Amino acid sequence: MENRQELQSLLDRTAAVCRSLTGDGRQATYIPELATVDPTLFAVSAVTLDGAVLSSGDTEARFSMQSMSKVMSLAFALERLGYGEVFSHVGMEPSSEPFNSIMKLEMTSAKPLNPFINSGSIVMAGLLAERLGSGVIKDMLDFASRMTGNKGGLVVNERVYMSESSTADRNRALAYFMHSSGTLSFDVEKSLDLYFRLCSIEVGTADLAVMGATLANAGKNPVTGERITSLDTSYTVLGIMSVCGLYDESGEFAVKAGIPAKSGVSGGIVCAVPGRMGLAVFSPPLDKGGNSVAGMETVSRLSRELKLRGI
Amino acid sequence: MENRQELQSLLDRTAAVCRSLTGDGRQATYIPELATVDPTLFAVSAVTLDGAVLSSGDTEARFSMQSMSKVMSLAFALERLGYGEVFSHVGMEPSSEPFNSIMKLEMTSAKPLNPFINSGSIVMAGLLAERLGSGVIKDMLDFASRMTGNKGGLVVNERVYMSESSTADRNRALAYFMHSSGTLSFDVEKSLDLYFRLCSIEVGTADLAVMGATLANAGKNPVTGERITSLDTSYTVLGIMSVCGLYDESGEFAVKAGIPAKSGVSGGIVCAVPGRMGLAVFSPPLDKGGNSVAGMETVSRLSRELKLRGI
Amino acid sequence: MENRQELQSLLDRTAAVCRSLTGDGRQATYIPELATVDPTLFAVSAVTLDGAVLSSGDTEARFSMQSMSKVMSLAFALERLGYGEVFSHVGMEPSSEPFNSIMKLEMTSAKPLNPFINSGSIVMAGLLAERLGSGVIKDMLDFASRMTGNKGGLVVNERVYMSESSTADRNRALAYFMHSSGTLSFDVEKSLDLYFRLCSIEVGTADLAVMGATLANAGKNPVTGERITSLDTSYTVLGIMSVCGLYDESGEFAVKAGIPAKSGVSGGIVCAVPGRMGLAVFSPPLDKGGNSVAGMETVSRLSRELKLRGI
Amino acid sequence: MENRQELQSLLDRTAAVCRSLTGDGRQATYIPELATVDPTLFAVSAVTLDGAVLSSGDTEARFSMQSMSKVMSLAFALERLGYGEVFSHVGMEPSSEPFNSIMKLEMTSAKPLNPFINSGSIVMAGLLAERLGSGVIKDMLDFASRMTGNKGGLVVNERVYMSESSTADRNRALAYFMHSSGTLSFDVEKSLDLYFRLCSIEVGTADLAVMGATLANAGKNPVTGERITSLDTSYTVLGIMSVCGLYDESGEFAVKAGIPAKSGVSGGIVCAVPGRMGLAVFSPPLDKGGNSVAGMETVSRLSRELKLRGI
Repeated sequence: MENRQELQSLLDRTAAVCRSLTGDGRQATYIPELATVDPTLFAVSAVTLDGAVLSSGDTEARFSMQSMSKVMSLAFALERLGYGEVFSHVGMEPSSEPFNSIMKLEMTSAKPLNPFINSGSIVMAGLLAERLGSGVIKDMLDFASRMTGNKGGLVVNERVYMSESSTADRNRALAYFMHSSGTLSFDVEKSLDLYFRLCSIEVGTADLAVMGATLANAGKNPVTGERITSLDTSYTVLGIMSVCGLYDESGEFAVKAGIPAKSGVSGGIVCAVPGRMGLAVFSPPLDKGGNSVAGMETVSRLSRELKLRGI
Repeated sequence: MENRQELQSLLDRTAAVCRSLTGDGRQATYIPELATVDPTLFAVSAVTLDGAVLSSGDTEARFSMQSMSKVMSLAFALERLGYGEVFSHVGMEPSSEPFNSIMKLEMTSAKPLNPFINSGSIVMAGLLAERLGSGVIKDMLDFASRMTGNKGGLVVNERVYMSESSTADRNRALAYFMHSSGTLSFDVEKSLDLYFRLCSIEVGTADLAVMGATLANAGKNPVTGERITSLDTSYTVLGIMSVCGLYDESGEFAVKAGIPAKSGVSGGIVCAVPGRMGLAVFSPPLDKGGNSVAGMETVSRLSRELKLRGI
Repeated sequence: MENRQELQSLLDRTAAVCRSLTGDGRQATYIPELATVDPTLFAVSAVTLDGAVLSSGDTEARFSMQSMSKVMSLAFALERLGYGEVFSHVGMEPSSEPFNSIMKLEMTSAKPLNPFINSGSIVMAGLLAERLGSGVIKDMLDFASRMTGNKGGLVVNERVYMSESSTADRNRALAYFMHSSGTLSFDVEKSLDLYFRLCSIEVGTADLAVMGATLANAGKNPVTGERITSLDTSYTVLGIMSVCGLYDESGEFAVKAGIPAKSGVSGGIVCAVPGRMGLAVFSPPLDKGGNSVAGMETVSRLSRELKLRGI
Repeated sequence: MENRQELQSLLDRTAAVCRSLTGDGRQATYIPELATVDPTLFAVSAVTLDGAVLSSGDTEARFSMQSMSKVMSLAFALERLGYGEVFSHVGMEPSSEPFNSIMKLEMTSAKPLNPFINSGSIVMAGLLAERLGSGVIKDMLDFASRMTGNKGGLVVNERVYMSESSTADRNRALAYFMHSSGTLSFDVEKSLDLYFRLCSIEVGTADLAVMGATLANAGKNPVTGERITSLDTSYTVLGIMSVCGLYDESGEFAVKAGIPAKSGVSGGIVCAVPGRMGLAVFSPPLDKGGNSVAGMETVSRLSRELKLRGI
């Protein structure tokens, strides 16, 4: 078990150093609402498997999950629909490709490479929307609230949702293309709508760190004690996080930090260290790969200090 | 620390079940010498960080390292040339692509995606051949012998080498293409020659498991006590193994087994579980992805039984 | 000048032989309205440069222009906007690619390869819709009526238009993608709407043959005597027809018939033989390349008989 | 029939204007021998179907055929092996692709797109070398000499051949790749060797214009009166020239000049105007597409002045 005081102290020291290490990172602007966020915000949280929630920095900061929602969506889909149905619609292999190439890949593939790239995530959303009907978003918000231990209940940030929805040329192109080829066999606009809502769920780093800790704890939320997923679901989600979590910097992150993680263009990174802890960090300026500059550095330092790789 | 008797017993039980689980796997035949190997051979070895070497099955079986040599080559290159020079020539990102697509990727990339795909490995070989001159193969065999703790000293299987060298249309195409575009700035035929020799180094599962254990032990061979690489080199090699180790089944393996590994078309898989142990398995029949069918199943079962992921 | 009686007799003989030569061709069904056309219809027309209009077969058959409208649209755009503006938005090079690959090409190209592939034609439509405003379709129908010498005036077949518009996943995907990358800088849905309307203009073979004869006559309609385009516009349209007219069978058609032409998935082919005549043929069953089987054979035979290549 | 005096006068006037119109063109240097040619050389020749050979400029200039040899090779292969065998090995469709993309295309195609791109031409050379044995180059030089009416007999420029052969990374990569995939089922090095020799055949513009006139005259050399190819062979070669003759500027050339042609990186262009004449021009500086700047302009002007398109 981790020593809470030492861990809090390490978070504070790391936060002090890393919050300014944003290099020439820039926050995302292609979704207009993201451009309005204060780029100097910084927060980090750690949640141990005995249920301690430790944070440092601007701990009250709230931001949209963006691609970090794909972790929760995958866990939800595995629990509700099962491994077999999920992976009949998407693969589980990494892609080091930027967006255009991912579109190219979709054109030669029977199904999206994995559930964390946009194509795969849109197909997941379409599948869930079709199977679970109009209550799907309510069910998923409830699931996310339990996985993050958020007592008030997570909600969609409507301004972010509107902003996403109206600036979605590429996701729309991708969805129509997949529909034409049969890869997306669900209603295009419903699939996109759920996808945008999920990206717009608002969280803080403590929420995310509890989510990571739940996976790290074999599916049982260590704060509330509630079982959220099976062990097998946590294995599957952790495995995909480890190879596909940071877009086309997943390999670089595996070298620098070496732990399962998922980033989002809002500037967050959620990590799950099996048998050890959950971690989350937030800092909006992104590198060219779309990952939080200060966030990657923070996690890399914590991984080394805490020997999160095992050595 | 692992209990040796329990571990030996687990290896024996797993071997008994898995050696016949080759499904419709087929051994590699595109290199003629590989087609001559007995497909019913099966061996598994585990090496703990306190230096115990445990094996089960056809423990005397010898086979060529093939792509597993890329683990050793990367460690060697990092130690001799440094992180900066190595990654100025290759990237560190995964590719889920089959061979043809990798060729396509090379045509649009400034450098090979990672040192484990053929293009990256040929560039590594060319770089090492140029920097270290004609003694390079002797140096690398010496390094490999120390990393595996092989007392007699590892050698190149000359028949496999000749067979590789004479059936290398695609690697030759790749090398000439990279030379034309400047990606491979070294002598084409010398680069290929070293690459073929490294693929042809002959080992057994115990050798490979010690190699894995050396990485898992932060660079120090746990059997001989010799430091082989720095901690940073082991982090780097482990990171790349975790995202690129099993060709276009790296994601599937991350889900099923969740530990850093590297496979070769001879039917071997070498694994390194940081802070826990090294593992190796050998069974020639391969699945469509080029990975040992029984080998993947063996490692997946051991990972689950021994909680090698941490949970 | 052509001998009218001999030409009529040749048309009749060729029609008699070719109308049944549809091999295993199948009419297009991806636009539902096209699937309702009688597949046994066959018509051929020739228009000489002294204004004779000769036809054979089901001369009353009416069908939608589909991609043959791209000939008229290009001529219209060149006349209204000029060569410079048109070719700042599209290229003029052939592509032997099927649809998926064309999408791939768009992702690496600054602009669509040529105005006859869907991407280029959608950009042309968007450009015309923006420059000419809401009256654009009326202007283009008027231009098409004068170019074909159709006295009653050409109109859009509304059922075909509705059918096109509602089954347009791929064109929609293409348009949204081009909009996201800046290749299509016009309103997506307006661009698509004009594109669908143009594809749905209804014609007969005599209309098309007059259109071809107008280009063959250096831009002057040989039946009405009206100048429709400049000599330079006819050169440009003829040049692009000769390299890009029959999708990915443009080369095969250049070998077999050797004259500028444009096909459409409704089963029509319009040809322009500079200094000699216009030709058009209609027979719905298409080969794998999307071209009328009987149509290609008819034109190939007429080309050989009439030495339309010059030898 | 053309008026010889007027045609000579037109050639002289056009040469006077065009020889300096090289813009920012640069002669090819990737084959070292090509870089040694005097870039200010300029010659143009026309050969009418009644056998007149008219030239202007540096009419004694000799240069290597480079890709223009593909016209002769295709005609030779069609005559010796027949249409069926030739097109079982290569296609007949254009590609607007630069070299890298052609390599990509080869990886997804069963056979090279056409006999004028490098891949297709290497396969043609391999096919001819295998079917006709070691005498193939002698036979082809004899055929080329008769097709060009060259009395002394055409020969390979050995310096250019050596230069080609030693700087052939990309063609070698292409050939090894095609061999690995079965697209090139002939000996790789023999295929390349014949290919390099054919590219290195030395000619002047008068030779090339006679070659073009032979095709324009339905296969009969209009100067010597000898039948060189069948009418069908001339149709096939003319068709492929019209869609694939000027690399990825074939469409632009179809718009500007509108006649069948083939260029080479030595700076030559050979044209065949069916029923009218053969043309050839030589000026080393090339545009970005690899085509002679002054050559394209010269042919475009002559086409317009002489109404070579028919209008």
